[in-house]
Amino acid sequence: MEKILWQHVLAVRQKSPLVQNITNYVVMNNTANALLAAGASPIMAHAHAEVEELVGICQSLVINIGTLSEYWVDAMNLAAKRAHELRKPWILDPVGAGATAYRNNVLADLLQYKPAVIRGNASEIMALANASVAATKGVDSTAESNEAIGAALSLHKICGSVVCISGATDIIVGPAKLCLHNGDPMMTKVTGLGCSATALIGAFVGVTSDIMQAAAAAMSLLAISGELAAKNAPGPGSLQVAILDKLYNISEQEFMNTIRISKS
Amino acid sequence: MEKILWQHVLAVRQKSPLVQNITNYVVMNNTANALLAAGASPIMAHAHAEVEELVGICQSLVINIGTLSEYWVDAMNLAAKRAHELRKPWILDPVGAGATAYRNNVLADLLQYKPAVIRGNASEIMALANASVAATKGVDSTAESNEAIGAALSLHKICGSVVCISGATDIIVGPAKLCLHNGDPMMTKVTGLGCSATALIGAFVGVTSDIMQAAAAAMSLLAISGELAAKNAPGPGSLQVAILDKLYNISEQEFMNTIRISKS
Amino acid sequence: MEKILWQHVLAVRQKSPLVQNITNYVVMNNTANALLAAGASPIMAHAHAEVEELVGICQSLVINIGTLSEYWVDAMNLAAKRAHELRKPWILDPVGAGATAYRNNVLADLLQYKPAVIRGNASEIMALANASVAATKGVDSTAESNEAIGAALSLHKICGSVVCISGATDIIVGPAKLCLHNGDPMMTKVTGLGCSATALIGAFVGVTSDIMQAAAAAMSLLAISGELAAKNAPGPGSLQVAILDKLYNISEQEFMNTIRISKS
Repeated sequence: MEKILWQHVLAVRQKSPLVQNITNYVVMNNTANALLAAGASPIMAHAHAEVEELVGICQSLVINIGTLSEYWVDAMNLAAKRAHELRKPWILDPVGAGATAYRNNVLADLLQYKPAVIRGNASEIMALANASVAATKGVDSTAESNEAIGAALSLHKICGSVVCISGATDIIVGPAKLCLHNGDPMMTKVTGLGCSATALIGAFVGVTSDIMQAAAAAMSLLAISGELAAKNAPGPGSLQVAILDKLYNISEQEFMNTIRISKS
Repeated sequence: MEKILWQHVLAVRQKSPLVQNITNYVVMNNTANALLAAGASPIMAHAHAEVEELVGICQSLVINIGTLSEYWVDAMNLAAKRAHELRKPWILDPVGAGATAYRNNVLADLLQYKPAVIRGNASEIMALANASVAATKGVDSTAESNEAIGAALSLHKICGSVVCISGATDIIVGPAKLCLHNGDPMMTKVTGLGCSATALIGAFVGVTSDIMQAAAAAMSLLAISGELAAKNAPGPGSLQVAILDKLYNISEQEFMNTIRISKS
Repeated sequence: MEKILWQHVLAVRQKSPLVQNITNYVVMNNTANALLAAGASPIMAHAHAEVEELVGICQSLVINIGTLSEYWVDAMNLAAKRAHELRKPWILDPVGAGATAYRNNVLADLLQYKPAVIRGNASEIMALANASVAATKGVDSTAESNEAIGAALSLHKICGSVVCISGATDIIVGPAKLCLHNGDPMMTKVTGLGCSATALIGAFVGVTSDIMQAAAAAMSLLAISGELAAKNAPGPGSLQVAILDKLYNISEQEFMNTIRISKS
């Protein structure tokens, strides 16, 4: 498994997949830089007049709802619908799911276009599963499960999505279940590293049709880069910079010696 | 006083106040990172459908008018109004006050919701006091005072706000007057450090009801971090990174040995 | 020539020209920081209610179409029109020209306001020349030239603009032709350095009326800074930071010893 994931890292560098991003203002620069450092080619565009056309020329689409407004939500729906029609994989980052009713409604709409991968933290995944159930069964329903794995399984069942739960241990739920044990606690003090993970998944689904592997490769690449970068980082400013460096220059040896992945 | 300010720095780290930001595109990433590095939890959202709901769950609100448009101005007014109703402290950064009539009108509207703190440079504070007077007495009126301290006192009188005037010496005007003598000239070559100061004030009003102290703690934390970071920074790129590191790892000894605060 | 370009670098530091930017979300922070590091004063604003007023107080205007939407396009047209009326130089960065019909239409509209300088990569310049011809001769027309120099000459002829083609060698086409041989391949792995080049041209047209020289000074300052910064950068994260440092602290000796400029 680990060797296959490294092959996908090389494939991103060699094929430079074109990834369209409709993402939030806070992380746009870092997301673009993370994609470039890993070898992919980012496009960031959201105009209604062009967003569908761009889906057509990209290998994948990433939608991140961090800084919503009506115009952007419409652009997200246009793009996700087109990706769904074209059977192009798209990735959903449900930032702040559960924080407001508006976010939940937006997410329930987007889920109908069946993202290939959903990536969020545990509370976002749980809120998203609730929103999904709410959309299906009415607003009074709430999901039963108290932990994110149940929520992830529910989302996988309803939407067919592979679901990544980010945390101290990253858990990937889909046809199988994988646990990734890399990363560093200081990564939570850099804004938008979760968003970078989501964007990188977009790059990896552009080079392999095995969605579980794509998600695992992206999540482990970022977590390993963060773990290695944190060793010499006195704080989160340096860490943000060093992660971009490591995404760019990580070697097979570094990757293979650091990765810790398990099936449960 | 210095020891109390340090206690507030620790309180932000321990309580991790949730700070809602409606701020400008240029600084969003750095602002979020500054809040995270200091230990706070940033939220960035501006959709009309959710902005009031988010005010309800945050400890404080930060409004920064750097990159205005009509939709954002409406979001700012909705949020500031709600904060005022809920008696939650909110902080105003009047970026570019005085540069255009539009900015002045927007600011005059926002001032009616009585920000707990206003932070800007001297020319912004003076323009804001003018706009405030203009709103009260008609557009032909102009404020008399030629220097920012008078303008700050006027704003304090009209709105009840604590007013921070950023500069080589930072001056805080409220029930009392404080002068902070930290910082480094190279900080003016990094975009948005003033905006970071404003956001940090948002974090500190989330852990203490003493608004003067909150403002002084935030302003001194950033200025001290900048002063320490500049010692090894060959330019503003490195300085921006090193300030985030120092916000995260500053020790009591560093803080107490560097702070220079006076009452006039 | 090289000494004159260095004089312009000093002039930007001394005169600190005010540069208005209507640019894309991805690069706003870095663009502002690049301008500050080089000694200029950036303004970023796009509200319809103030954008023309700001053109009036700035030395130059930069328009970058990276992340379009209708509101922003209207702001760009208002600002470019006003700059044209006031005979203030403005700079166009046609990001993604040719990628969608929408972008081409937006660009054809903007070209009527005759930018002093256009900067893009080879494919953008070629697409822009096509769009320009299309606007003139109907949508079925396509430009004949297969390479960007021909496209640049065509744009220079139609609009009077100096045209910068960014690449391994930067080519500047106008009343004369200049080639710049500085830079480093890793610069393509940092998002928005082309946008920074465009913004810096905005700074230099604020201190000299010789547009060819302004373009050459800006392009060479960034390329030289990148080349010097890359020597110690292990990856694109560090490179981005080190370029800002070098824009700020580059010495005459470094500039003169590194610059490689030729007339063909």
